Amino acid sequence: MKQRKQTIYFRNRPYILSGFSIAGKKEGNGPMSSWFDRVIEDDTYGESTWEKSESKMLKTAMTEAVRKSGRSNDEIGAMLSGDLLNQLMSSSFMARDMHIPFLGMYGACSTMTESLMLGSVLVDGGYSDNVIIGASSHYCTAERQFRMPLEHGNQRPPSAQWTATAAGAMLIAQKSDSDDTECSMIDADGDIHQLRKVRVESGTIGKIIDAGVKDSNQMGSAMAPAAIDTILNHLEDTGRSMDYYDIVLTGDLGYTGKQIVIDLLEDAGIDRNTISNVYNDCGAMIYKPEQDTHSGGSGCGCSASVFAGYVYKQMMTGNIRRALIISTGALLSTISPFQGESIPGIAHAISLESE
Amino acid sequence: MKQRKQTIYFRNRPYILSGFSIAGKKEGNGPMSSWFDRVIEDDTYGESTWEKSESKMLKTAMTEAVRKSGRSNDEIGAMLSGDLLNQLMSSSFMARDMHIPFLGMYGACSTMTESLMLGSVLVDGGYSDNVIIGASSHYCTAERQFRMPLEHGNQRPPSAQWTATAAGAMLIAQKSDSDDTECSMIDADGDIHQLRKVRVESGTIGKIIDAGVKDSNQMGSAMAPAAIDTILNHLEDTGRSMDYYDIVLTGDLGYTGKQIVIDLLEDAGIDRNTISNVYNDCGAMIYKPEQDTHSGGSGCGCSASVFAGYVYKQMMTGNIRRALIISTGALLSTISPFQGESIPGIAHAISLESE
Repeated sequence: MKQRKQTIYFRNRPYILSGFSIAGKKEGNGPMSSWFDRVIEDDTYGESTWEKSESKMLKTAMTEAVRKSGRSNDEIGAMLSGDLLNQLMSSSFMARDMHIPFLGMYGACSTMTESLMLGSVLVDGGYSDNVIIGASSHYCTAERQFRMPLEHGNQRPPSAQWTATAAGAMLIAQKSDSDDTECSMIDADGDIHQLRKVRVESGTIGKIIDAGVKDSNQMGSAMAPAAIDTILNHLEDTGRSMDYYDIVLTGDLGYTGKQIVIDLLEDAGIDRNTISNVYNDCGAMIYKPEQDTHSGGSGCGCSASVFAGYVYKQMMTGNIRRALIISTGALLSTISPFQGESIPGIAHAISLESE
Repeated sequence: MKQRKQTIYFRNRPYILSGFSIAGKKEGNGPMSSWFDRVIEDDTYGESTWEKSESKMLKTAMTEAVRKSGRSNDEIGAMLSGDLLNQLMSSSFMARDMHIPFLGMYGACSTMTESLMLGSVLVDGGYSDNVIIGASSHYCTAERQFRMPLEHGNQRPPSAQWTATAAGAMLIAQKSDSDDTECSMIDADGDIHQLRKVRVESGTIGKIIDAGVKDSNQMGSAMAPAAIDTILNHLEDTGRSMDYYDIVLTGDLGYTGKQIVIDLLEDAGIDRNTISNVYNDCGAMIYKPEQDTHSGGSGCGCSASVFAGYVYKQMMTGNIRRALIISTGALLSTISPFQGESIPGIAHAISLESE
């Protein structure tokens, strides 16, 4: 039996009072389209640089999540946010305009559940009544920072993933008065639902797992072992089996990494049918195969927008009652591969319940 | 009266069970020399790249803080850490070798108190029994990432600060059994002291304040207004006057920023004698004027090493009973100045008590 438990339980199970997801044009043409709260037709979002476009998307997500919660900025004790850009440029410049106490997070693409973890701790422990959290990414900022200038038009290998142009935000609160928020919603199929409350039940903080992958076009392979480590630790800590959850969703492993997780879950003795019934990956869900993204989506905004859009809304309507969401991050730096380093992976899991 | 309080109180006042500070050769020749736990004579620290040197320094600080606490790695629920490098290269690669659940922080040079804040929340709220936190910086990694390759030998303006080659770590714990840790210490003057316990009492999460400074060689000016905002909010939230504290210490404003804080504190009606009795800045303390650093020290490691070295030890010996420590960060990115942006500043305050 292992010595240390990595899972923390939220005694008061804080409420996710609101969520907001915003996505770019390509993402808006994908399978998640109807779940996003807003799709922008122009990926510049009216700004003069890609970094400012991404920052504005994140600001929209944060501002709209606050508005939908019925809270004012003054009632929010802290904002936790991160992105892929050097020095968290999107988050820092977004937060400058919000006048909310700010804590910057960096977990690469694991940032959404990292922020959700620490935001929930702040609320659950009684340190803040309301905390807003979020994360973003943008194809054009990520390409020029991590890979090649877009103008190169370089060839990408089949294992490469497409950084999602998207952002997501959630407002975590100690109290949920039914007056505060919308009580019914029309879903993508036109059905009206009485809305359930979504609560944060527990979270598993991930350890860094480095599988020795050195190819930065193999992010899915680099992150999959960390995802598996966190999922298995979560199940062991909580004494749950995988089918306790209606859905178990990794962040951005893409087609390649998703298949590795399926194989490793089977190796760990989990039933093949259970895996195919409950497990999926946001990076494999956000684009259609014919959108030619090669191995699917990635970026902080990929899981942020799918969690704040699809998962949160499906939980509010009661189609999903229990969800385990696991954003996954590759903690390489832009220069570490040139110094001979392999890619450290990390993943943090959050258990959500609707009631 | 302001609506939102930014200060959180730690009901159980977690213990800082141990601290460890490590510094480079230049810092070892400065006034803080005898307070550092280790001074390295060779800033490469035996590594082949500066980034690996910095990461190794941070790893030493973390490992030694754990060792001094009497805890084993398996007893530590989480590690919170950050640095200035893109994608937190020092922290990520340090954490890879530690096998402790990891949460990456980015607050530029405010990272030490940001980590101390969230680490204390995790411990105080009962989510982890033991949390290790830390931060680092290195002159040679910062220069090549933010400014010029060292080989250029470029001229620095008088307002520029010198990024400290240093790291600091602290272990925060729910319980402090007297058997766990050392009970007496010989100070720099050769006196033997019975050691007091150091506890985290409260913390004030800072808002981003952008004073419109666009010159990245004026970091002290850019961060000073954020430091003032956090200090004044802390004093107002807690109803304390500045002389409640034996020492109020900002992170790395340097000579220029320190003078601005003194002026702004006087403007806020705080007595000049009180200010000169209790206020200082780690950036103004870490080098001697004749070491030719221009406006003093900066970097996450500056406040991290002074807090984990000087402040922590002075509190253990009882020379300081109450300290307000405020790491200060400039949240510009390497490209934001080229996009016409000014420098967002931030500062987080932590109140420590010895008993």
